[in-house]
Amino acid sequence: MKHISLLGATGSIGTQTLDIIRENPDQFKLAAMSVGKNLDLARKIIHEFNPELVSTRDKAGSESLRAEFPGIVFTYGDEGLTEAAVFEKTDILVNAVLGSVGLYPTLQAIEAGKAIAIANKETLVTAGHLVMKAARRKKVPLLPVDSEHSAIFQALQGEKEKNIEKIILTASGGSFRDRNRDELVNVTVEEALNHPNWSMGAKITIDSATMMNKGLEVIEAHWLFSMPYDRIEVLLHKESIIHSMIEFHDSSVIAQLGTPDMRVPIQYALTYPDRLPLKSASKLNLAEIGKLHFAEMDFNRFRCLKFAYEAGKAGGTLPTVLNAANEAAVAAFLNGEISFLQIEDIIEKAISKHEIIAHPDLETIQTVDKETRSFVKGLY
Amino acid sequence: MKHISLLGATGSIGTQTLDIIRENPDQFKLAAMSVGKNLDLARKIIHEFNPELVSTRDKAGSESLRAEFPGIVFTYGDEGLTEAAVFEKTDILVNAVLGSVGLYPTLQAIEAGKAIAIANKETLVTAGHLVMKAARRKKVPLLPVDSEHSAIFQALQGEKEKNIEKIILTASGGSFRDRNRDELVNVTVEEALNHPNWSMGAKITIDSATMMNKGLEVIEAHWLFSMPYDRIEVLLHKESIIHSMIEFHDSSVIAQLGTPDMRVPIQYALTYPDRLPLKSASKLNLAEIGKLHFAEMDFNRFRCLKFAYEAGKAGGTLPTVLNAANEAAVAAFLNGEISFLQIEDIIEKAISKHEIIAHPDLETIQTVDKETRSFVKGLY
Repeated sequence: MKHISLLGATGSIGTQTLDIIRENPDQFKLAAMSVGKNLDLARKIIHEFNPELVSTRDKAGSESLRAEFPGIVFTYGDEGLTEAAVFEKTDILVNAVLGSVGLYPTLQAIEAGKAIAIANKETLVTAGHLVMKAARRKKVPLLPVDSEHSAIFQALQGEKEKNIEKIILTASGGSFRDRNRDELVNVTVEEALNHPNWSMGAKITIDSATMMNKGLEVIEAHWLFSMPYDRIEVLLHKESIIHSMIEFHDSSVIAQLGTPDMRVPIQYALTYPDRLPLKSASKLNLAEIGKLHFAEMDFNRFRCLKFAYEAGKAGGTLPTVLNAANEAAVAAFLNGEISFLQIEDIIEKAISKHEIIAHPDLETIQTVDKETRSFVKGLY
Repeated sequence: MKHISLLGATGSIGTQTLDIIRENPDQFKLAAMSVGKNLDLARKIIHEFNPELVSTRDKAGSESLRAEFPGIVFTYGDEGLTEAAVFEKTDILVNAVLGSVGLYPTLQAIEAGKAIAIANKETLVTAGHLVMKAARRKKVPLLPVDSEHSAIFQALQGEKEKNIEKIILTASGGSFRDRNRDELVNVTVEEALNHPNWSMGAKITIDSATMMNKGLEVIEAHWLFSMPYDRIEVLLHKESIIHSMIEFHDSSVIAQLGTPDMRVPIQYALTYPDRLPLKSASKLNLAEIGKLHFAEMDFNRFRCLKFAYEAGKAGGTLPTVLNAANEAAVAAFLNGEISFLQIEDIIEKAISKHEIIAHPDLETIQTVDKETRSFVKGLY
């Protein structure tokens, strides 16, 4: 029986993680969780899964729930997030929160010796060097939950990292795959949220439309698989059936495929190195699909991907700036405060103004993250 | 340094195996080999690789070479094949001969504790139960060389067989992929030998055109991966880029891909569980290829595949009959003695007349094999 701490239980990855726990009550137990602003959903989850500790976003949420569930420990805010992450009985932390707020609890969970299932890519983007160093020191497994990184991780089983020639991340192209840049000027939030293949949270869906999601994934892959940036490629593959691939130096390519269903990589992270049946998942039927399409990535059409490679290669605090500027800009777009194309303009300004600090520690990263967000606020 | 016995050195797989040995002189040494009727090529190979033992097809070949290469042991015929297979210094036998003649040397090499790289699928089709039982008893690895089985084998690394839902073998469709049955009536040997993707020997190229090759591979996969026939699927995939796939019970699919180049699976069998660079192989470029196509297999269009499933499921001596009838019919077609569609008619007659003997031993298999060949001779 694996005890799970789930950060971001009310989000898209969170609820799908709960699906997996529900299907396998003899394998997994929800020990602790953090929830977002949806307290109604939080109540339902508490009723069904009866965790021992729950962290809410703010004090008011915590107090209102405490009155209803007297047997459960409630806490809140950033500190609550970390308390849930390092909960004593927990074997594995599923980090499914949004943004760089996931960094500190992840580092603390690693120090506490928890296995980490990481859906929160911003944590690795903003401070991959700190996370990987800590995980190696504590010999804690970092299990990817992103479908692309799970694909790479699955393809790597039984193989040696020394034999990898390159990693090929596939990209669906997002909501605006078939539009040129002129056609992006007046797009709405609703259009941007309409992803062709995946049902995901709002932030990652916008990131997919700007291709920043793939950019963040490139940096995530760099850290998870110790891979230089010039050996990480991005391939347009509009069906999202091949989730990613590894090319080995004998020219053999191993790929992981499937219908787009996040429960598969979530469950794999939880059952690794074993697998469990996932009966409700729809099976891949390539004959029915008929064709898979592939095309080269256009770095002029998708400028955010270019920014991400640049930030990743430059290193130091630049990925932190890239990520914080993106988080702030996407939030502003979702609030109707800026247009879609302003997202990339803002990121470009933020990374071009920044003076890189090499080998930043946690405090430096947190400071740069905050400074970037306030810099972005001044741009619109 | 691995010492290699290579049966079928002058054939297509044989010469490509020699390419691998040539590229990695510090890893591999040709210790013994058998050659076919091309003695000129045999001479060149002996000059270059200097094996200690060479087996020729007949006595005359052996005697003529002995005069030229006094330091080398020459032998011939079926006995010579076995002597080469069990050569004392050999670590790994690459069985790349054609047809069920490869069975006895393979069994003897297993008894002698050699690792087996098996390109000779007829051996597993005709007597899979004997080969697998012997390999398990002697704890000898059976390393597939067929691109499809190598793909499955690679996809299975780091995974557990218990988690396999099904195996999906891909099929290019062969030389006559886009023709209907009416258009097959008058096809010539030359047309049949023109495979769209792979450059292979004549027999396997005809087997690809009749789809019997995929049928033999289904039976081979059944034995190599202990997989029931109803969990082995065949998928039409005309580009031969995805070489085969495993679907696991969590609905995750692992595939091995690459440009069609037999040196990749040959080298993998020799370097397993490691990989070595294969610089001369052309890298897969999916963006350049653009599209991969998939379609359901049509068992009426490709009757041989249906026969193979039937023979495999019935078991006993029926796969031996299927294989021997096919070998004899394909040889007759290549000799211009029968038409293309007669190949499947002959196989159908042979398997429908046969009274199955369950759990046959080696002698029974050899007898049934001979009887089938003489039965086939009476049909045209």
